[in-house]
Amino acid sequence: MGDVGRIPVGVIGASGYGGVQLVRLVMDHPQLDLAYLGGDSSAGRDFSSVYPHLFHQVNQTIEPIDLTQIADRCDVVFLSLPNGLACKMAPQLLEKGCKVLDLSADYRFSDLGIYTYWYQVERTDQEIAETAVYGLPELYRDRISEAQLVGCPGSYPTASLLALSPLLKQGLIIPETAIIDAKSGTSSGGRQAKVELLLAEAENSLGAYSVARHRHTPEIEQVCSDLSGHEVLVQFTPHLVPMVRGIFATVYATLRDPGLVREDLLTIYSAFYRSSPWVKLLPSGVYPQTKWASGTNLCYIGIEVDPRTARVIVMATIDNLLKGQAGQAIQCLNLMMGWDEMLGLPRLSFYP
Amino acid sequence: MGDVGRIPVGVIGASGYGGVQLVRLVMDHPQLDLAYLGGDSSAGRDFSSVYPHLFHQVNQTIEPIDLTQIADRCDVVFLSLPNGLACKMAPQLLEKGCKVLDLSADYRFSDLGIYTYWYQVERTDQEIAETAVYGLPELYRDRISEAQLVGCPGSYPTASLLALSPLLKQGLIIPETAIIDAKSGTSSGGRQAKVELLLAEAENSLGAYSVARHRHTPEIEQVCSDLSGHEVLVQFTPHLVPMVRGIFATVYATLRDPGLVREDLLTIYSAFYRSSPWVKLLPSGVYPQTKWASGTNLCYIGIEVDPRTARVIVMATIDNLLKGQAGQAIQCLNLMMGWDEMLGLPRLSFYP
Amino acid sequence: MGDVGRIPVGVIGASGYGGVQLVRLVMDHPQLDLAYLGGDSSAGRDFSSVYPHLFHQVNQTIEPIDLTQIADRCDVVFLSLPNGLACKMAPQLLEKGCKVLDLSADYRFSDLGIYTYWYQVERTDQEIAETAVYGLPELYRDRISEAQLVGCPGSYPTASLLALSPLLKQGLIIPETAIIDAKSGTSSGGRQAKVELLLAEAENSLGAYSVARHRHTPEIEQVCSDLSGHEVLVQFTPHLVPMVRGIFATVYATLRDPGLVREDLLTIYSAFYRSSPWVKLLPSGVYPQTKWASGTNLCYIGIEVDPRTARVIVMATIDNLLKGQAGQAIQCLNLMMGWDEMLGLPRLSFYP
Amino acid sequence: MGDVGRIPVGVIGASGYGGVQLVRLVMDHPQLDLAYLGGDSSAGRDFSSVYPHLFHQVNQTIEPIDLTQIADRCDVVFLSLPNGLACKMAPQLLEKGCKVLDLSADYRFSDLGIYTYWYQVERTDQEIAETAVYGLPELYRDRISEAQLVGCPGSYPTASLLALSPLLKQGLIIPETAIIDAKSGTSSGGRQAKVELLLAEAENSLGAYSVARHRHTPEIEQVCSDLSGHEVLVQFTPHLVPMVRGIFATVYATLRDPGLVREDLLTIYSAFYRSSPWVKLLPSGVYPQTKWASGTNLCYIGIEVDPRTARVIVMATIDNLLKGQAGQAIQCLNLMMGWDEMLGLPRLSFYP
Repeated sequence: MGDVGRIPVGVIGASGYGGVQLVRLVMDHPQLDLAYLGGDSSAGRDFSSVYPHLFHQVNQTIEPIDLTQIADRCDVVFLSLPNGLACKMAPQLLEKGCKVLDLSADYRFSDLGIYTYWYQVERTDQEIAETAVYGLPELYRDRISEAQLVGCPGSYPTASLLALSPLLKQGLIIPETAIIDAKSGTSSGGRQAKVELLLAEAENSLGAYSVARHRHTPEIEQVCSDLSGHEVLVQFTPHLVPMVRGIFATVYATLRDPGLVREDLLTIYSAFYRSSPWVKLLPSGVYPQTKWASGTNLCYIGIEVDPRTARVIVMATIDNLLKGQAGQAIQCLNLMMGWDEMLGLPRLSFYP
Repeated sequence: MGDVGRIPVGVIGASGYGGVQLVRLVMDHPQLDLAYLGGDSSAGRDFSSVYPHLFHQVNQTIEPIDLTQIADRCDVVFLSLPNGLACKMAPQLLEKGCKVLDLSADYRFSDLGIYTYWYQVERTDQEIAETAVYGLPELYRDRISEAQLVGCPGSYPTASLLALSPLLKQGLIIPETAIIDAKSGTSSGGRQAKVELLLAEAENSLGAYSVARHRHTPEIEQVCSDLSGHEVLVQFTPHLVPMVRGIFATVYATLRDPGLVREDLLTIYSAFYRSSPWVKLLPSGVYPQTKWASGTNLCYIGIEVDPRTARVIVMATIDNLLKGQAGQAIQCLNLMMGWDEMLGLPRLSFYP
Repeated sequence: MGDVGRIPVGVIGASGYGGVQLVRLVMDHPQLDLAYLGGDSSAGRDFSSVYPHLFHQVNQTIEPIDLTQIADRCDVVFLSLPNGLACKMAPQLLEKGCKVLDLSADYRFSDLGIYTYWYQVERTDQEIAETAVYGLPELYRDRISEAQLVGCPGSYPTASLLALSPLLKQGLIIPETAIIDAKSGTSSGGRQAKVELLLAEAENSLGAYSVARHRHTPEIEQVCSDLSGHEVLVQFTPHLVPMVRGIFATVYATLRDPGLVREDLLTIYSAFYRSSPWVKLLPSGVYPQTKWASGTNLCYIGIEVDPRTARVIVMATIDNLLKGQAGQAIQCLNLMMGWDEMLGLPRLSFYP
Repeated sequence: MGDVGRIPVGVIGASGYGGVQLVRLVMDHPQLDLAYLGGDSSAGRDFSSVYPHLFHQVNQTIEPIDLTQIADRCDVVFLSLPNGLACKMAPQLLEKGCKVLDLSADYRFSDLGIYTYWYQVERTDQEIAETAVYGLPELYRDRISEAQLVGCPGSYPTASLLALSPLLKQGLIIPETAIIDAKSGTSSGGRQAKVELLLAEAENSLGAYSVARHRHTPEIEQVCSDLSGHEVLVQFTPHLVPMVRGIFATVYATLRDPGLVREDLLTIYSAFYRSSPWVKLLPSGVYPQTKWASGTNLCYIGIEVDPRTARVIVMATIDNLLKGQAGQAIQCLNLMMGWDEMLGLPRLSFYP
């Protein structure tokens, strides 16, 4: 704490999985200094009583969420809270000059009506919300660089959109044929004591949930529509898989030109992600595994074409808590500060 | 062994996972008697040295595969061998009067040309193969009852077809929109020492394989075409999931009539499976979990309709080694013998 | 419900893991009929809303715990409740003529002072408690046969005592050298939403808990002392392992006679468990695996002697929810009813 | 490759789990440069075909093991090979001036007779072997600093010895009462295709192996005897646990002075490990979890005393592939080069 020249940052919602990832990443980052750990239910507790494995590294106490205090001590604030809370805090933090990166859904929608419809939260911060940038650097790098407020997408939209974007941007597929069959490790459910997330229940089991009505659907559609230039509906189905970390998105779509082959698409994807150091396009015939991305901010993408059905199948995998959450927020901050996009973020997974 | 009135059965390929399931099911079956355990690489070994947990229950030795011996001692023979071997044994066993249930791909195809194309095995038993019945009782119950030779489908086709069949039979979907995104536990890979099936590699990882070219595709399409009355191509993508047992098939298709709602489909499925005691249709809004079917011969099916996209999403789950393999073979045998279809098969899972 | 000649039983505490095992076992038992499902927090809910996989098998509703109703409708009552509740219900149920099998700690102690010291519950049912029998059939078969009230031991004491008993009974070891290093799957923690039992926390992790002060210690010591004829203290250390089911107890003790070899001990154990059909002594050099016992009421025991250190190492494994909980209760009931000890209980595991 | 001022290192046996850890750690180390990847069965293959997730980071090919080439290009050589091979290579590499760190058992024994007895390999390099230092920095830091040849201990001895050493060094326990009950993730079995390491077999199962005769026993005893000043025998029992990474050692021993309490021991351990930055002693009443150490070079130690039995119970956990293998080798090299012991090694785990 207090290293000269480092930027003081606050993590609000420090006791959740997003929080502990942020704490870890901030500690490993050469330009950041952890200046404030804030929480609600965990306020007053030592961080090391919540995460004992860090007792020798983090000796801070989780403080109550006092926006004035936070703004005084931090230049940058990460909000890692349940939906509907960030929108009550961000305006004040921004006014006091903080850069704000929100990990909830609050600042991901350009149309707050859609947000209110899906999240059942009335909003009064329309003006602020309009200044927010969607924090997916591979699509909105330039806008993020100039933003004060970033709404970072979560793990499902990140994997889904990195898989779909080149296809939509280049008009290669019939948009309404897009189906995203997504699989997630259980840590996406957060550090919440829910029966269905118990090892005894979730181990050796796999199931789908929120079929045809998951709240990430409108968020994915918003970006797809932006890329396509017209409104796009997608089919999105999330599944819970017996593993801790990782998202695997299998994306299906019908090609406009059935003559396209795998190598064509690899070329197009390579070009699309040429300036995106965190996206790794796999060689022809290689498909990703969630374990490869685990513990890194990487997204691996594999591509297949089925000439029999004229469909493209794109597979994308990320670590749901890094590129799908906290790592993405740091990546955005790197851009906002004018630093190298890869600064301080893990790029080598431990394997196995 | 030798219980009066019980039917003597042989299990050839006893050392694999299919074999040990069959041994267990035969031992629990009130009308069957385990008369022959046959194997190739494991011949001469005590069965209990291969599966020590059964040392107190099975004191038989795995014998070399001697077809004369087998036919002398068995009325029924289960062949649980790699593809391309059953077709060399079944003709002789049938000739000697045995009923034969094959768990490999050898007798699943009515057109051996398709088999040879996908499995690279030349066949000389065309005449015998024409007498084989596809062993999915929910679709071909009557024909199985009268068969001497049954080619039992594996786990992917079973789950996929139980999910798709009512839609195709009733002409409710546009067939070429059908996409099957299937997830399997690693025991489907068999008891083979492969690096990618090691716990260290497969745990906490998920990936797709054989995308756009898995050998179960033509088998699924054969039945779909039979049900539809015209040739159908489907998209089939298998994934390996870090769990021991279970198949989860998520099936997507576009409805011909976008006005159909979930309850309509539940009604249609209920009618379709009215006489199928092993298929359990879940109530509206409930989706299956692989764990529910684990250790049983059940198939759970859940249905959802997305009115936004006019798609139906059907989810089917089975235990890959029971309803997807050995249990199905016993179910077929029950029919061939004129017994109750549920006789001797497990219907209550242990949970959790 | 209501099968002629079947004994009507009630399961109180039906929504927990003990409850659902009991329901399943009762349904599979040829002499039992499920007459009452009772619960507290889950009263009024359909059982199938708590365990949806049983919707087609169990159509009963969980009723409030009304002792008069229960005694009217049931001859036998299983109490599967948190510690401290059974002792408030059993007296009345016994008075009305029910046989009672308690799965909590309430009736496991002959000295209620020890119970009160470790469980912090004052007791007023001393007279009733004195009639209770410790429900480990392998040690107290005869007394269980004549009991009206049985206090069934849980999974740790069962595995530990089955491993240790022959050594203590025959005076083969120096009792105070006994160390039990026990490993348990997470389902032993019950269907409780606790953070430390989440898959995300417990998967890929292993730890010890309640070291030197676990409440099963005095219970194990009570039986060890009974067998030895003098007071014995043991070292007992439980560990939580990333798996759903299973207990593995590794027991260390110093032999009085360092000349004893493995085969001597196998002979002694074989004699000790000659009339115990659920205990399977493994051949020389074979050690048990928890998976072998999973889904059965079996206990597998392996024995090793280290001539270098004069220690015996005994390894015992059971399914924590069957032989370690619900299966044991049914086994006790079989004895209480004069039935075959194995009646209706699963003896063949699914493997893998 | 070829960064100015970096030390060129070779990894021989690059395709195993030890190899890929070393590759990853070398790439993250600020002073090292990966100059040679050597292998036997994998020679000629691109490293990225063996570990596809590193395709974008490592573009080297695994070369045949040519000692002259290796010595020409490397200042430091890590040998990560099966037992019995390093002793054939190390002499020549040392003669050519390389520093050699061996991860096998070949250079862990001061008495080659013990090695030959347990490993069945005749040795002709007695003279070289005598110069080898046992690579456990917490015990032999000074000697490692001056060594040219280090025999790095594996995961079981590392966890066991870090737990036991202060007790033996200070004479606090009766040495012959020491029992080590050790639990390991399956990656300790290496990247070998063995049936018992398959996910289908190992998942949801736990068992002991090599009871009373594991080859790490004499290695542990050698160091214990060195610390005690007289010959010590220990009981060591390894168990395989369904998780990828991690060792958990539960160590039991009888205290010479039964009046010692937990806090006394914490004080003694703190003093013993004062200069050991990778050992983290947990606060009173906190016990370690394997997940805490995962992905780091840390060893967490928790201590408990049972006043009833006069025993101390010490729990130590490490990542078996880092502090228990490759990380330890890098830690040793840091000392050999005069660098900070923590240089380039991971100290913050990802959690969960």
